Amino acid sequence: MSPATVASSSVKTLMVNGQRLMQMMTDVAAIGALPNGGVRRLAFSPEDLEARKLVQCWMESAGMKVTIDAAGNMIGRYQGRFPQAPALATGSHLDTVPNAGIYDGTYGVIAGVEVARTLHERGIRLDHSIEVIVFADEERTMIGSKAMAGRANLDPNFYEHPHYEPIEMGVGFIGGDWDQLTTAQRNTDSMAAFVELHVEQGPVLEAAGNPMGLVTGIVGQRRYLIDIDGSASHAGTTPMPMRQDALVAASQIVLAVNRIGNKTGNGYGDQVATVGAMKLSPNVANTIPGRVEMTLDIRDLSNLRLDAMVAELEEEMAAIAASTGTKISLKPQLRNEPVPVNSHIYNAIEQVCNELKLPTQALPSRASHDAQIIADITDMGMIFVPSQGGISHSETEYTSPEHCIQGANILLHTLLKLDQHYRCPEEATVIKAESKV
Amino acid sequence: MSPATVASSSVKTLMVNGQRLMQMMTDVAAIGALPNGGVRRLAFSPEDLEARKLVQCWMESAGMKVTIDAAGNMIGRYQGRFPQAPALATGSHLDTVPNAGIYDGTYGVIAGVEVARTLHERGIRLDHSIEVIVFADEERTMIGSKAMAGRANLDPNFYEHPHYEPIEMGVGFIGGDWDQLTTAQRNTDSMAAFVELHVEQGPVLEAAGNPMGLVTGIVGQRRYLIDIDGSASHAGTTPMPMRQDALVAASQIVLAVNRIGNKTGNGYGDQVATVGAMKLSPNVANTIPGRVEMTLDIRDLSNLRLDAMVAELEEEMAAIAASTGTKISLKPQLRNEPVPVNSHIYNAIEQVCNELKLPTQALPSRASHDAQIIADITDMGMIFVPSQGGISHSETEYTSPEHCIQGANILLHTLLKLDQHYRCPEEATVIKAESKV
Repeated sequence: MSPATVASSSVKTLMVNGQRLMQMMTDVAAIGALPNGGVRRLAFSPEDLEARKLVQCWMESAGMKVTIDAAGNMIGRYQGRFPQAPALATGSHLDTVPNAGIYDGTYGVIAGVEVARTLHERGIRLDHSIEVIVFADEERTMIGSKAMAGRANLDPNFYEHPHYEPIEMGVGFIGGDWDQLTTAQRNTDSMAAFVELHVEQGPVLEAAGNPMGLVTGIVGQRRYLIDIDGSASHAGTTPMPMRQDALVAASQIVLAVNRIGNKTGNGYGDQVATVGAMKLSPNVANTIPGRVEMTLDIRDLSNLRLDAMVAELEEEMAAIAASTGTKISLKPQLRNEPVPVNSHIYNAIEQVCNELKLPTQALPSRASHDAQIIADITDMGMIFVPSQGGISHSETEYTSPEHCIQGANILLHTLLKLDQHYRCPEEATVIKAESKV
Repeated sequence: MSPATVASSSVKTLMVNGQRLMQMMTDVAAIGALPNGGVRRLAFSPEDLEARKLVQCWMESAGMKVTIDAAGNMIGRYQGRFPQAPALATGSHLDTVPNAGIYDGTYGVIAGVEVARTLHERGIRLDHSIEVIVFADEERTMIGSKAMAGRANLDPNFYEHPHYEPIEMGVGFIGGDWDQLTTAQRNTDSMAAFVELHVEQGPVLEAAGNPMGLVTGIVGQRRYLIDIDGSASHAGTTPMPMRQDALVAASQIVLAVNRIGNKTGNGYGDQVATVGAMKLSPNVANTIPGRVEMTLDIRDLSNLRLDAMVAELEEEMAAIAASTGTKISLKPQLRNEPVPVNSHIYNAIEQVCNELKLPTQALPSRASHDAQIIADITDMGMIFVPSQGGISHSETEYTSPEHCIQGANILLHTLLKLDQHYRCPEEATVIKAESKV
């Protein structure tokens, strides 16, 4: 039986064990559980380590060989018939924000493990090895995926944070070794593709009637600090025409940002623009705000559109500064480039959904994921499942078991399709499919 | 010589000792001095007490009898020819905000003392007694003027504040007695009029070329808390049309407030409207603000205009709530009624300025003063001198010596005029003018 035959003969009937998938979700959710159904499993915490160890057990029972690289990434490898061939990788993260839901990250890891368990119990071995990667510290530093992409800063002080222990200690705690960080780097020689399955964390799919999400790319993100300097003076004694009210200027900017964010036509329509944080000085009821600092966050798949948004806002800010007698500055704080997905992976996911008769919707990912980092070193694609109410980074985050199971089946069959897409070196050793352990 | 003759013969030549006035300002400014020329003399603090004791010495050297009432108001009384007649009172306060300039309050007290010193050294005794009042705790509770007007809350817990000692201890520290608070109450039987001299604390007079300020009244002030409830969600994953951004709604309200504050025509033009403080939740760069709380402060001499401003804003807020999908509420926090000045005191001040050939400008007081409380129990008027840059409640508060001296002379001659305006009981004992001590 040729490798292609192994995969294609299984497509119509092969499905993950949904009950087992959800039981694994429940088991991991118990580690760092919060009172209202959520979870707190900070990167490098004892809870993080405990969850990784549980997942490691499942990986090993699925016949995977588990290693931890120098960055603390835990990699379960389900050996393929051509072990020298680059792996097909999936995975996500087990660490969470302080008040998290149970799906973000964890779902992608568990679905990957369930795919391997399904293959393993059916005795199916693909041409390529399958890797399920648990990335280190996705929520804060993305150190795991960054080290794998060769983008980590080797100076641990770069990641210093007053609320956390030194990162080299954290990485060591979960089995990594900061001094060997560069050894975590991968490339296409060892990884043919990376597919991440994740909850949407937004309301788009639910609003569209809960189709499966075909991710078109991960948006570029730019973050700025906007400073507005006016003049703080007495809210009673300063006549209106004599004011330089920094909050009046700031409010005009917030509305300009919102207007630009809502533009449609000429390629606009998928961008988002947000002022999320604002600090007034002196911030008391009877004083005109003399200074406002606020954040600006803009995201879009197109750098050209992001450039145009910034240019338009700068023009508006100049006019606002002039009309309000304030001084306004825009300081770049963060810039993540847009990351397109590989079209053949996108197409494979879409075909799988069609074969499984699951409705789909194309949408960009507007949140950050390890996948956008890994895209630096190999082909990348993403699958989204619907998030109830679009809620994420909250204990009330929820995705139905039905959607969780559908997503895992899409991941399984996408990996089967990619196994055929990528050619294996003909001289590689062929290992015969093993029966269930 | 009739009482009228005593006063009118002095008008053209009688002037305060400007150097002595400014020396007293300097001496008081040294008590609680801050590094940058300002002062910190919190009510009921050792500095407050020290300043009051220094002023008491000057009062006594000016032939005044000094008493402290149950509320801690220090009253220097320069006996008149008709001791049974109600006094003509002036004064202000010596306590300050934490980072104060040296003029706010102190200037009105010192000018009153200088008026008494001038009368005393010239051997001039008026028909009415002159009182210079140092009110207790103007900056925080106005407990002194409120007790004098019979408006104090007798429950000390009403004035409880986490950063201050219990008010009854504070009042006791400066010589008052909380248990006897009601005895501080006065009325027209003991006080014929109250005239407060104060720095403008705003930029109106300076902008008009530094005329003397004829205060038309003290504006009514209403303070509100505006709550805006939207929906906090991910700034990346939530498409613009699906947002309920509380900050976008808040910004529209800030601009509506500013527009209403800037209205002119139909009696508008002197009102002010300010959003001074704002709190966002969760206030982080990558989350759409789910909730905004902000303050609204509006002031005008007319209650009708204040009513109209609130009604217009409520209408705008309803439209903003509807268009942004947010819930907006306006909660009253504070309401001080507008206080007109007595026209005969206003006219007396204006006449004095004309006689002294000082230019004048009519303006409302948009800050709070003890005078607005005392207006409850007797005739009230106010004189403003220019504030450089309109700056107040700041170490950089400044009024030139020239304007300080001019203001004190206006106060002196206004009291002389009022001495003639009010008739004394004919049966009262006449005390002959004494010569200089």
